[in-house]
Amino acid sequence: MDFSIDSKLQATLGQIREFIRADVIPLESDFLSKPFTQLLPALNEKREKVKTLRWWSPSIPKEHGGAGFSFLEFAHISEELGRSLLGYYVFNSQAPDVGNMELLIAFGTPEQKQKYLAPLVQGKIRSCYCMTEPEYPGSNPVWLGTTAEKDGNDYVINGHKWFSTAADGATFAVTMAITNPDAPKPHQRASQIIVPTNTPGYRLVRNTPVMGHSGEDWATHGEVEFKNCRVPQSNLLGPESEGFALAQERLGPGRIYHCMRWIGICERALEMMCARAASRQLAPGQVLGQKQIIQAMLAESRAEINAARLMVLQAAWKLDREGQKKARVEISTIKFFVADVLQKVLDRAIQIHGGLGVTDYTPLAFWFRHERAARIYDGADEVHKTVVARQLLKDYGVKVDLVGA
Amino acid sequence: MDFSIDSKLQATLGQIREFIRADVIPLESDFLSKPFTQLLPALNEKREKVKTLRWWSPSIPKEHGGAGFSFLEFAHISEELGRSLLGYYVFNSQAPDVGNMELLIAFGTPEQKQKYLAPLVQGKIRSCYCMTEPEYPGSNPVWLGTTAEKDGNDYVINGHKWFSTAADGATFAVTMAITNPDAPKPHQRASQIIVPTNTPGYRLVRNTPVMGHSGEDWATHGEVEFKNCRVPQSNLLGPESEGFALAQERLGPGRIYHCMRWIGICERALEMMCARAASRQLAPGQVLGQKQIIQAMLAESRAEINAARLMVLQAAWKLDREGQKKARVEISTIKFFVADVLQKVLDRAIQIHGGLGVTDYTPLAFWFRHERAARIYDGADEVHKTVVARQLLKDYGVKVDLVGA
Amino acid sequence: MDFSIDSKLQATLGQIREFIRADVIPLESDFLSKPFTQLLPALNEKREKVKTLRWWSPSIPKEHGGAGFSFLEFAHISEELGRSLLGYYVFNSQAPDVGNMELLIAFGTPEQKQKYLAPLVQGKIRSCYCMTEPEYPGSNPVWLGTTAEKDGNDYVINGHKWFSTAADGATFAVTMAITNPDAPKPHQRASQIIVPTNTPGYRLVRNTPVMGHSGEDWATHGEVEFKNCRVPQSNLLGPESEGFALAQERLGPGRIYHCMRWIGICERALEMMCARAASRQLAPGQVLGQKQIIQAMLAESRAEINAARLMVLQAAWKLDREGQKKARVEISTIKFFVADVLQKVLDRAIQIHGGLGVTDYTPLAFWFRHERAARIYDGADEVHKTVVARQLLKDYGVKVDLVGA
Amino acid sequence: MDFSIDSKLQATLGQIREFIRADVIPLESDFLSKPFTQLLPALNEKREKVKTLRWWSPSIPKEHGGAGFSFLEFAHISEELGRSLLGYYVFNSQAPDVGNMELLIAFGTPEQKQKYLAPLVQGKIRSCYCMTEPEYPGSNPVWLGTTAEKDGNDYVINGHKWFSTAADGATFAVTMAITNPDAPKPHQRASQIIVPTNTPGYRLVRNTPVMGHSGEDWATHGEVEFKNCRVPQSNLLGPESEGFALAQERLGPGRIYHCMRWIGICERALEMMCARAASRQLAPGQVLGQKQIIQAMLAESRAEINAARLMVLQAAWKLDREGQKKARVEISTIKFFVADVLQKVLDRAIQIHGGLGVTDYTPLAFWFRHERAARIYDGADEVHKTVVARQLLKDYGVKVDLVGA
Repeated sequence: MDFSIDSKLQATLGQIREFIRADVIPLESDFLSKPFTQLLPALNEKREKVKTLRWWSPSIPKEHGGAGFSFLEFAHISEELGRSLLGYYVFNSQAPDVGNMELLIAFGTPEQKQKYLAPLVQGKIRSCYCMTEPEYPGSNPVWLGTTAEKDGNDYVINGHKWFSTAADGATFAVTMAITNPDAPKPHQRASQIIVPTNTPGYRLVRNTPVMGHSGEDWATHGEVEFKNCRVPQSNLLGPESEGFALAQERLGPGRIYHCMRWIGICERALEMMCARAASRQLAPGQVLGQKQIIQAMLAESRAEINAARLMVLQAAWKLDREGQKKARVEISTIKFFVADVLQKVLDRAIQIHGGLGVTDYTPLAFWFRHERAARIYDGADEVHKTVVARQLLKDYGVKVDLVGA
Repeated sequence: MDFSIDSKLQATLGQIREFIRADVIPLESDFLSKPFTQLLPALNEKREKVKTLRWWSPSIPKEHGGAGFSFLEFAHISEELGRSLLGYYVFNSQAPDVGNMELLIAFGTPEQKQKYLAPLVQGKIRSCYCMTEPEYPGSNPVWLGTTAEKDGNDYVINGHKWFSTAADGATFAVTMAITNPDAPKPHQRASQIIVPTNTPGYRLVRNTPVMGHSGEDWATHGEVEFKNCRVPQSNLLGPESEGFALAQERLGPGRIYHCMRWIGICERALEMMCARAASRQLAPGQVLGQKQIIQAMLAESRAEINAARLMVLQAAWKLDREGQKKARVEISTIKFFVADVLQKVLDRAIQIHGGLGVTDYTPLAFWFRHERAARIYDGADEVHKTVVARQLLKDYGVKVDLVGA
Repeated sequence: MDFSIDSKLQATLGQIREFIRADVIPLESDFLSKPFTQLLPALNEKREKVKTLRWWSPSIPKEHGGAGFSFLEFAHISEELGRSLLGYYVFNSQAPDVGNMELLIAFGTPEQKQKYLAPLVQGKIRSCYCMTEPEYPGSNPVWLGTTAEKDGNDYVINGHKWFSTAADGATFAVTMAITNPDAPKPHQRASQIIVPTNTPGYRLVRNTPVMGHSGEDWATHGEVEFKNCRVPQSNLLGPESEGFALAQERLGPGRIYHCMRWIGICERALEMMCARAASRQLAPGQVLGQKQIIQAMLAESRAEINAARLMVLQAAWKLDREGQKKARVEISTIKFFVADVLQKVLDRAIQIHGGLGVTDYTPLAFWFRHERAARIYDGADEVHKTVVARQLLKDYGVKVDLVGA
Repeated sequence: MDFSIDSKLQATLGQIREFIRADVIPLESDFLSKPFTQLLPALNEKREKVKTLRWWSPSIPKEHGGAGFSFLEFAHISEELGRSLLGYYVFNSQAPDVGNMELLIAFGTPEQKQKYLAPLVQGKIRSCYCMTEPEYPGSNPVWLGTTAEKDGNDYVINGHKWFSTAADGATFAVTMAITNPDAPKPHQRASQIIVPTNTPGYRLVRNTPVMGHSGEDWATHGEVEFKNCRVPQSNLLGPESEGFALAQERLGPGRIYHCMRWIGICERALEMMCARAASRQLAPGQVLGQKQIIQAMLAESRAEINAARLMVLQAAWKLDREGQKKARVEISTIKFFVADVLQKVLDRAIQIHGGLGVTDYTPLAFWFRHERAARIYDGADEVHKTVVARQLLKDYGVKVDLVGA
């Protein structure tokens, strides 16, 4: 075992951290107080700078227009980007676009790559991903209401989606729909289809109000309706009936990135806690950091973040070496473990900041409310724990049903 | 011991619950999606109805224009009001007005009562309470920066406050300021002074953005500046140098009400959890409530809420019989215990609601973000725990310093 | 509501506490270091004293030879007895005898009362209760392997039991066995039968080693075998096929007593924590109690114990007024809630005592290891939580199966 | 980063695991039910086998008679040994002997090595380590009551120690005593001195009863008295006044081994949980493992153990590369983190085993009671958290006093 980080990567990470600190974090207070569209000019300026620095679309291979960092390198970079509310966006690595880029690289036809991937990597357009449905449980992903029926050369899509992040302003929506309702195995009934958002029958119903805000543009979670929405069958992404397999393929690395992003949040929160504990006077000459409970909060946070990072890097390493399927249990493990650490660290950070912690003068309150969903999206804690237990019990001859227990 | 509730009170509580359900809860979705001022007409209509039902200003004695419920009766009523985001407001029992009313009743001069109390009880004006300061720690309440110097017949006030709830639109501000800086005992240095908000030198700097919103009107937390703000000494509320004693007097019952309000929130959240667990299908024929983890969440919430309610009612009973001072440890105990229960119950409620839980389609997300402060305001957990420990250790001859340990 | 305790009861409780302190606690160090039989002379002396003080068999009506305290009075007394490892024994209220006394009073025939109840109340004999079976899960109490077949006027019992507390030295065993295997409802298949331990076919296989000790005499948990063990049908206790109903009847108040006993343990542990925090020097002039984490441990323990006591007393009050069945959910609620508090308080007490906490120089280590079972015996946490959730979800039309979910 | 384990080490670990399973675990039930001395013949037989397999004294360099595994290799081996209650003993790696061996190797004179190290490595004698004192707090290690005064060529030692593990039967005791009471820095006042246990004035007062047992021979924690105990100054181990530095040197790797041993315990407990969950029927056809709460317990344990292992290996790797001092914070971090994981995993394992879990038919109950001390020995949680916080706050200019806060 070797826990050292390659010195070249180390240097890059240091530069990115400094860039985040000096260039991106200063934009946060506007992000927290103004409509997102008002930030776009400043953000675009930073995005141009990222291109110049050759970090643009860091996880995307150079041949497709990205910076070409390896998967493991990008895992580390994700942490640095996660330190700011805007890091991912500024590097053109924001969800859900980066996931869609990866899908298109892996499964897109040359035409799809040209039409959708290229402008996405260039940052000229945005996209969304339509999977979650309000009427069906996320914990049972094979049970969907949205259908895509073949009609001539087309698919005709009908259905209702929500939590389609960044649908507002998206040019196309990668959409999960039942195409093969009669397939014997439930996970072989759906496909992923590219739906341009200007297709008749596609409608962004609203930006769902989440934790007090509907948001606008990228910073939204859209509710989308498909009503006899007709797209050519050539818009199928990957093989028909393999929608779930593709979703898994997309979500595996996606969960690694999320986890590393959360670790970046945690590290920033811990720094803020330390700074606050060191400066907030309780009485003349006495600072908060001299109180033993505060010390325990700092130490427990340090320990949990260390644990989280090592587990995520190990899962990434395994995914990289043995593939998505072999690393599935590790990925479920980090998903619930790191989301829990994130919530605990943010909770402590707010407590240490007192009244300031619930204001929007720091990013803590934003993370506290918006990352509550970390224990829900991409699989609720309960689902991932069952995945892990299923694997453990398999060796003892017990079959655990993900949904039915 | 007798745990039964008087049948007359029981009946009243049932009627109030029904009123909250039928009349107040339907206004919540507007509260969650529109500026507060747009709700005022509808709210005022309900407030008139409350007057007709003889529940108006429930905790205020009849001679002062309230409904005249006893302290213990009002503790129970608080729970019912707490079930809705708007219950307290509709009954004219909203913070910080109700606390100011109680202060004025106990310590106001006849002139102060006529000028400030009467219109407050009638719901014609609103008020705020200026205690917390951004530069000084809430955990050390005797360390304040705001001063009120005597000059002729006036006090000249200078200082900086924040988290002055509902300052936006308030007619007057009860203000804590150092009037006797040289008093030997730190807790005998401050006084409470009534400052009309149209006094020159008083300035509402801004509504502090909290958890994503600056709000407007009553639904705000104001930052206030006092700059050579001059009020007559007759605006002193209660005896000079007794500001902290008055604050304690105000906060004791206030913490009981908060705690009962939180229990109302918890009960509503538990009902929502049960309804969700009973209706959300995981697969055809199987609902969420059949999962053992969900059952545990429900049962643990039920247990914790029961515990919280009994403790609060016991503390209220003791305060009522033996007075504020004797009940101080009980009040500190419930403050941190119930705030913790509240946070845990809301967290579970959101988890059970999944994606819906983080939207603004239920009040859960509002409570989750805004009641995070319950563990901070009116004394952070850490402070109240030290108060309890101090009392425990006193009998063993150990002197615990609230701030210095 | 009235949280006051009758002054006469108050006085009795004070006297009992003093007796426990002065007479019983001094025997603990022998209990922790010597075989139980060596303590018997000293214990018997104290038992005689308890008789003189008219506290003997406190929960048993005077007409049956007890002190005749009411159920609610005894709930309070239980706490005082629980403060010592030996309190219950010295008052002849030890498990499982007191439960068997209550069963015999409620369901015993005059002959059974004369033969079994009278000497039990007098403290001349001991008894045990054979329910739990090693091969069958305690969480599914209707699934038993032990059978009692009718043969002529007899029952012929075959089966295997364990955790029959105090079987070593018991004169008779109240035994749960399947008598009506074909009854349509599973909970109407078993009966309770009195089996004298000298009956051929009854065998105490061994005292099960628990947490490092097999123990002897009363301080044991027996493994018992029934092999063609023949007793007359007149030994049936209560109606045939009503074994589970009787067990419930027995366990309801039993859980109240357990919970109050645990609270007694907690109070004693908290006193020990405070004394330790006040006296243990960390450095010259500085004691443990000045550290904020220690203070938090004390305060959290205080809060949780208060919560636990109020809940148990409320459940007892309800059981007393509305009967066992109506109070079932309250009883399940306190069972898991108080067991959890107990474990947390003991854990903190040990931590505060440091190395001393794991030695046998205090009773903490004994309670820590032996009360771990509190979350298992008389229904595991998981079972009681499901009972509570089942009741909550019933109102929403969901049927929760206690075992099958 | 590379998380792979060298294939040769992998193979060795597999062989050791198999040996532990086949040869050592079968001795556990005797360990749990009989006096330790009765096991010695069987244990010695296994120890001979370990020598033959060339694993004897695995962490000791070959030149001193050990198997010569590297520090990092031994960290991995520790986990395998920890899977059994007897693993460390059978490999002659038991505390406190292995720590004393390492001290002697690093600081012993040639004579000390010959006289004490050689027979220790050969397993011919045992030793103990006298540091902890009943009257002085472990959390303030520089505050000691034991003194060693120079008198002629001797030290004359007076003092009182306890928790001297395995003092019963030890040939010598490495003893921490104040030799330089006037040194300006508190941590430069003590030295380590080798005291043969047959020295007049050295007395094993008793084996302290811990969690119900005083034990015998190696399986003990001794209370030791030094009364004018005279040893030649040549028995000084390492430089005078460097006792604390040596203790640190000894404890650093010791904590790594402890942590890896705890992970071994956790892995074994998790296997037992899975086996139990897979086999325990709740009703015909339904096993415990199908319940969601049980699944969550398994998954959370899996996650926490993974986290713990990675953190410990990372700390070991850093200690190996950068030395004890640089890794100090990492070591404090793992000490409290892994001890917490250990306690949680054992608690769950007992809960899943139900009544069986508290019996001595599995090793779980032994670990549950004896490893409670893991959060106390070698530095209580609270101390290690303060160490971590001190380091974090240093960068922000705050000086944290380990004891005085």
